[in-house]
Amino acid sequence: MEISVIGGGSWATALVKILTENKVNVSWYLRRKEQVNMINADGVNPDYLTFVRLNTAYLKASTDLAEVIQQTNKILFVVPSAHFPSVCSQIDSDLIQDKSVITSIKGTVGPDNDLPSAYIANRFKISENKQAILAGPCHAEEIAMGKKTYMTIGSPNEVLLRNLKPYFERFYLQVNVSDDSVGMEYAAIFKNVIGLVCGIAKGLNYGDNFIAVLVSNAIYELEQLLKSVHVNAKRIACSGYLGDLLVTGYSSHSRNRTFGELIGRGYSVEQTQRLMSMVAEGYGATKGIYQTAKELGLNLPIVNTAYRILYRHMSAAAEFKLLERNMI
Amino acid sequence: MEISVIGGGSWATALVKILTENKVNVSWYLRRKEQVNMINADGVNPDYLTFVRLNTAYLKASTDLAEVIQQTNKILFVVPSAHFPSVCSQIDSDLIQDKSVITSIKGTVGPDNDLPSAYIANRFKISENKQAILAGPCHAEEIAMGKKTYMTIGSPNEVLLRNLKPYFERFYLQVNVSDDSVGMEYAAIFKNVIGLVCGIAKGLNYGDNFIAVLVSNAIYELEQLLKSVHVNAKRIACSGYLGDLLVTGYSSHSRNRTFGELIGRGYSVEQTQRLMSMVAEGYGATKGIYQTAKELGLNLPIVNTAYRILYRHMSAAAEFKLLERNMI
Repeated sequence: MEISVIGGGSWATALVKILTENKVNVSWYLRRKEQVNMINADGVNPDYLTFVRLNTAYLKASTDLAEVIQQTNKILFVVPSAHFPSVCSQIDSDLIQDKSVITSIKGTVGPDNDLPSAYIANRFKISENKQAILAGPCHAEEIAMGKKTYMTIGSPNEVLLRNLKPYFERFYLQVNVSDDSVGMEYAAIFKNVIGLVCGIAKGLNYGDNFIAVLVSNAIYELEQLLKSVHVNAKRIACSGYLGDLLVTGYSSHSRNRTFGELIGRGYSVEQTQRLMSMVAEGYGATKGIYQTAKELGLNLPIVNTAYRILYRHMSAAAEFKLLERNMI
Repeated sequence: MEISVIGGGSWATALVKILTENKVNVSWYLRRKEQVNMINADGVNPDYLTFVRLNTAYLKASTDLAEVIQQTNKILFVVPSAHFPSVCSQIDSDLIQDKSVITSIKGTVGPDNDLPSAYIANRFKISENKQAILAGPCHAEEIAMGKKTYMTIGSPNEVLLRNLKPYFERFYLQVNVSDDSVGMEYAAIFKNVIGLVCGIAKGLNYGDNFIAVLVSNAIYELEQLLKSVHVNAKRIACSGYLGDLLVTGYSSHSRNRTFGELIGRGYSVEQTQRLMSMVAEGYGATKGIYQTAKELGLNLPIVNTAYRILYRHMSAAAEFKLLERNMI
């Protein structure tokens, strides 16, 4: 076994597909026994990307988290940010020491709104130099269908980057590497806020002109955020930063979009959460980015708008009227 | 009469709607007698935005170009770039001297691929200081329906900016001003190339992930282009630059998109032009931006790809395979 994958959603399934196609042996943790059984028997995740048949010669699924972690020295976490603390609480620190940790978690984590990498550094005393992140546009369905896309692996550790790159490279997946893992973590979280805000705009019946202005101003806010956290983002106009932002902002399928659209149509946060029976990353991400910006003394009008609508129960229509005047 | 509008398409019609709503008296030139008659009689342009009823108290349409120009000292040109030289050739230089010229022409003009402002400066000896441009996302249908959007007026002339701003401000249209008219002219032309390229990608069956990467890299190319022409673009992440790019890149209605999609599906340029029986701005814009970049010694992979497909008759599929490797 060469890599342990923790998480059973559509993005995790797409990543396992890529890894096993590359003949990388995967030890895979999923929560539900039926998922594990069906994957080991037929190579099919019954809950996500059901049209994909994984090569079982290169994978073993299990519900035993400790066992999955013990089997390799590279641990890839692909779980919603809201569930990440509870997953971590099931992991013995000693078990994961000295391993490399890779995350594809697109939200802030825990009560302090930590970046995933910072949360891991605190929780397990695993330095950022032993960590990597996966970034880029990630319609899991498209990648599972072999439609061309791009992934960026971010890490300050060049050796880790060099080891991980061939795990993911496929004829349909171009893999870039970058030392700016922190900047891409921020971008990945920020883009969920924007996906949700674009959904609200849609729900409020704004048109394509307005959405384009909204996304343009969102790009400006991302630039301001990255500058303020001093990260090493030489060029954000590429797949690892804006690619993810654009696919989320313009996606009509994402949970963030659906969540936002319901808010825009007048549903409350509570009603929307009940209706969707799942968490949209943008909800928590809004709070995380809002508080981060506040600490940095940074004024991000779009983020503020999302925060007031979602957490202060302000009218989406009225808040957008204010936002209109704060964009150029 | 306060402003003369030259051009009878959907964008011109939307602008006349805004002006007349603001009780600005418009002298309006259109080519076809039937258009003029119906507009003067009923306030309806029979060819474009037919659901709009213009207030005839504030406008007079005419097929007499000289007369329309003589009536005011502000001339607003809203014509396809390919037709602009022929329109100009019908205008006596003396007639237009000492007037302010405003353009909303989103393509390079003439055999030398001039910016519209430079073409006017050459042709009529009207300096850039007597000129202004209109920029921003421009789905004409949306603006005609009163959906919120943004326009930027660009000019080095502050007085002209101050005079023009109230002409266009509406509760659904926020008007910004900028001294970077040249940068926004480039951005407006460039975005047509990208609209067409996104269409080709769609025609070749690329997915949303790829389009997001394509647009991200296009933003980078726009940044490079603007830097090379040394323009005064302090912030391109706003409606006047990226707003227009995004609405065009992600529009499913535009001519550029349709044109590109047919090319992507394997039609030749000649077949596509016959099928569409109209000119997509992106076709000429591709040549203009390509040659401009070449003169600047600038390598723009997306622009090069479009040029080779449209003007060198290279296979779209093969050129996109090459482009894939030139994006990050």
